[in-house]
Amino acid sequence: MSQYRAPLRDMKFQMEEVLDFTSHYASFPQGREATPDIVEAILQSAAQFAEDVLAPIDGMGDEIGCKWEDGEVTTPPGFKEAYNEYIANGWTSLSMPVELGGQGLPASLGGFCMEIHATANHAWTMYPGLSMGGIQTIAAHASEELKARFLPRLIEGQWSATMCLTEAHCGSDLGLLRSKALPQDDGSYKISGSKIFISSGEHDLTKNIVHIVLARLPDAPPGIKGISLFIVPKFNVTDSGEVAERNNVHCGSIEHKMGIHGNATCVINFDEAKGYLISPPHKGMSCMFTFINESRMGVAQQALAQIEASHQSALEYARDRVQFRGTVRKDPEAAADPIIVHPDVRRMLFTQKAFGEGGRALSYFLAIQTDRERYSESESEREMAEALLSLMTPIAKGFLSEVCMEATSYGIQVFGGHGYIREWRQEQHFRDARITSIYEGTTGIQGLDLLGRKILSSRGKALEPFVKLVLGFCKQHPENPYAGTLQTQMQKWVELTTELGMKAMKNPDEVNAAAYDYLMFSGYTVLAWTWAQSALVASAALEKKPSEAEADFYQAKLDTARFYFERILPRTLALEVSIRAGVETLPEFSAPL
Amino acid sequence: MSQYRAPLRDMKFQMEEVLDFTSHYASFPQGREATPDIVEAILQSAAQFAEDVLAPIDGMGDEIGCKWEDGEVTTPPGFKEAYNEYIANGWTSLSMPVELGGQGLPASLGGFCMEIHATANHAWTMYPGLSMGGIQTIAAHASEELKARFLPRLIEGQWSATMCLTEAHCGSDLGLLRSKALPQDDGSYKISGSKIFISSGEHDLTKNIVHIVLARLPDAPPGIKGISLFIVPKFNVTDSGEVAERNNVHCGSIEHKMGIHGNATCVINFDEAKGYLISPPHKGMSCMFTFINESRMGVAQQALAQIEASHQSALEYARDRVQFRGTVRKDPEAAADPIIVHPDVRRMLFTQKAFGEGGRALSYFLAIQTDRERYSESESEREMAEALLSLMTPIAKGFLSEVCMEATSYGIQVFGGHGYIREWRQEQHFRDARITSIYEGTTGIQGLDLLGRKILSSRGKALEPFVKLVLGFCKQHPENPYAGTLQTQMQKWVELTTELGMKAMKNPDEVNAAAYDYLMFSGYTVLAWTWAQSALVASAALEKKPSEAEADFYQAKLDTARFYFERILPRTLALEVSIRAGVETLPEFSAPL
Repeated sequence: MSQYRAPLRDMKFQMEEVLDFTSHYASFPQGREATPDIVEAILQSAAQFAEDVLAPIDGMGDEIGCKWEDGEVTTPPGFKEAYNEYIANGWTSLSMPVELGGQGLPASLGGFCMEIHATANHAWTMYPGLSMGGIQTIAAHASEELKARFLPRLIEGQWSATMCLTEAHCGSDLGLLRSKALPQDDGSYKISGSKIFISSGEHDLTKNIVHIVLARLPDAPPGIKGISLFIVPKFNVTDSGEVAERNNVHCGSIEHKMGIHGNATCVINFDEAKGYLISPPHKGMSCMFTFINESRMGVAQQALAQIEASHQSALEYARDRVQFRGTVRKDPEAAADPIIVHPDVRRMLFTQKAFGEGGRALSYFLAIQTDRERYSESESEREMAEALLSLMTPIAKGFLSEVCMEATSYGIQVFGGHGYIREWRQEQHFRDARITSIYEGTTGIQGLDLLGRKILSSRGKALEPFVKLVLGFCKQHPENPYAGTLQTQMQKWVELTTELGMKAMKNPDEVNAAAYDYLMFSGYTVLAWTWAQSALVASAALEKKPSEAEADFYQAKLDTARFYFERILPRTLALEVSIRAGVETLPEFSAPL
Repeated sequence: MSQYRAPLRDMKFQMEEVLDFTSHYASFPQGREATPDIVEAILQSAAQFAEDVLAPIDGMGDEIGCKWEDGEVTTPPGFKEAYNEYIANGWTSLSMPVELGGQGLPASLGGFCMEIHATANHAWTMYPGLSMGGIQTIAAHASEELKARFLPRLIEGQWSATMCLTEAHCGSDLGLLRSKALPQDDGSYKISGSKIFISSGEHDLTKNIVHIVLARLPDAPPGIKGISLFIVPKFNVTDSGEVAERNNVHCGSIEHKMGIHGNATCVINFDEAKGYLISPPHKGMSCMFTFINESRMGVAQQALAQIEASHQSALEYARDRVQFRGTVRKDPEAAADPIIVHPDVRRMLFTQKAFGEGGRALSYFLAIQTDRERYSESESEREMAEALLSLMTPIAKGFLSEVCMEATSYGIQVFGGHGYIREWRQEQHFRDARITSIYEGTTGIQGLDLLGRKILSSRGKALEPFVKLVLGFCKQHPENPYAGTLQTQMQKWVELTTELGMKAMKNPDEVNAAAYDYLMFSGYTVLAWTWAQSALVASAALEKKPSEAEADFYQAKLDTARFYFERILPRTLALEVSIRAGVETLPEFSAPL
């Protein structure tokens, strides 16, 4: 079985060679500590923890899963020890502000470490992962007093956080939610309701769990505009931030799921539990989006992490397993050649590589925007970063989660029958990956967010900064072999958008009918841009006659870029047609059951 | 949770309205008993057994799986009782020849019952399913004496059969296999070797298990041309066909798999076990193809069965689950509408329906060819049927198994978060479905079989009968709204084939590089033909003003045909490009691990 190795070379390629993180980090105060040496040391340390501690317990986490008994959840063997080591080494505080007890390094750097850890163990990494979103949400919206009370322990990792949105009758449509919050004389609230699908909702890793909860105040208007946001801790917390008595928050059960068995997906029951309002009354949804957007980028990262993990194993297997003779026979005496000599096996490996590394490139580009939005001293830079993030978050989350299913499925396929057997672990990647297109908003919801909420409601303006960026790249690099295709692709994207805008004015259902295919079109196009960039850099690097191993690395970039443009991007030809087919191809479903 | 209902209405549509099975059955002696009344009674009886007995034990089969202890395998609760009822009701003998103790009904009819049963319980149906292939193989190749000894009990279902091909080091490439057969003085052989991935290899359902085994004789030439075919029973059998002493055949372990947990996937060790040669020496592979081809069609059927099962649940859920308001609001007071009002949900349901019902149409067309190949009194009809089956088996197996992963994934997606939870059973369909593109030859192998072995090695002749058939249909029905598209599609198929033939002469790897995409192109095109046919029939039926429920049924056919042509078939635009991209887009994989 393959041993996970953090893809440090490819990370460095995107960070240093393509996106120039050195200059990026030097451009804002919180980034200045992140010198190349420091960054490398941190990533290597993250890699070591991932390879030595997290990867070895991933399979057992899947086999044994979480256990629920009388409201308590036991995580799989090794999870608690790994978590203790993780917080002892300060991973949770890495990119938290110094004034809150953090190490003050950039958010992006924390994200890269999270990617390394998620690739080794998706389920485990969700425990600290959700805390990140909880911390950001509290930091952005809670009072100074609540921040002081809750943040230090969360940042240390002594406590963890969750997001409590879904109820049994409302998932995508949060306007239907019923959980209630009654104001108390002391300024707190009594929260009652039952939440489901709460990832990391209950576990034995931390001394307290801080739930970020959506509920309605008594005078709330109906629907999505009557929802407020609360902190509800598992254990109450004293003013000085110490754990006090148990709150009325209990885990009613955990779900038996297809994958991510190592993470407890909980029913959490709030029975007049003490909570604290952190949004303006009835305006909780927009505050929750701090958490939701952070989580969506996290899911995009999990998707590329699963592709990476699946690809590493598949590549190793394809080089090892012999079956059939290839046409080029290095050893004329061999009975069979490694299956990687067969073009169809390469097709699957290139597909994984194109999505995994292209997804990483996209993720790192967005990491720059996250840093800028958070730290930049220039208002226009902050605004541009925010605009790009707003547009690209649904693309990254929606598209990468869809293609990671294809890529991890190819991971199984490369293994043939062995891919279907648990012991080889390829099927775990496929099962774990399957959640990414569901949680934090299904792909359908991402499509509506992108096309309806972001692009069409701005009359296409939301698309402009990115279009400008890519067309600028094409103009700047006319020698790039993909500049022409990319330019055409961007024009098509704009044309499709304009057409859909016109159609949607006549029938708003046109948005819903096109949203999924439009999202996929956008994703394939965005990844084409990342591959054109990577090819440009790799091509220049090859001209400098690097070592053989380095030359192999860059050549593989060029080969994958070509593969992407010639065999993957053409999928948008089909999407153009289905986008244009319109809502009349999706009529009322008249088939009797 | 949804209760499976056999899709008898749609089966009737294909059998009676599209393909005229009444005339078909009347056209050969073994079909004359299969009058419409008899057929309906048999299908209803098959449906009742599937709904009442098999479907209820499918979930438990997944949860509990098979247990292995000291070489013995225990199937999940209820499996043995269901099997006893199955054989008591004569299901295994339905389409077996009367002279061998069967009921003499057509093979196709047995196949339709198998489809109904596999939809209710894929894992369980593999036990009797494999026996069918074993019986055919023995009937086609064994001596009269061996037939008399082994077939009666197999046909009764008292014994079951397996196919033993794969060894640890050889899966797709059977030329590498090492199992040995030593001739004995009594005319039998001592078989030694270890086989893996043997479905139904050991279990507690039958009194004996008859393994059909590939092994090498002492004087065998190396590679695929040195393999012979044997019967190796678990228990030896007396001349009169009764169970005697245990043979040296033992189950070494069972695999822990991603899905089909109810079927035991075994390591079977042969240790000088007594066996009987049933192929000419060294010519076992061509005999084994009797079994392999039957199994491949069985897998195509499992794929459409999984789509059907997933779609039934998803459709029911989509009509039941309310979330968001639709634009057309039947109840203006409701807080939300059933999610089936949203076009994107319909897109997923239509995709399932298009593949599931289109797959059924293809499967039934091929069932006619199977009957003709086996029973027709006209040699030219037999030859034509054989030619069509030879061409279409890899398409049906390869294409349907690929799209069934997409379709069952949509089943999960329609359920949102609930789709990922075991209790709703959608994720089981997805896991069970995943095996179909692997066993009985991966999709890559099907692609090579189609493009290389069948089409190019015949210089395109293998494609001709089908092209003629479809072009004939287009010419005969110029009023069909899809006739023009279909005609163009067939021309493209022929053009691509010719181009690939030219390229393959220069570089044989071009076949391997194009095979997967070519197979998918072929599958989408073949399904377009089935949808054009179905639309034609539905359109004519609607003109006759049927009842409302019937009109809904036919309207759904028209809607799905339109959906297929406008939103699914355009995928071939992308495939054309990637097929033409050629082997140079799949160069040596230079990326270091």
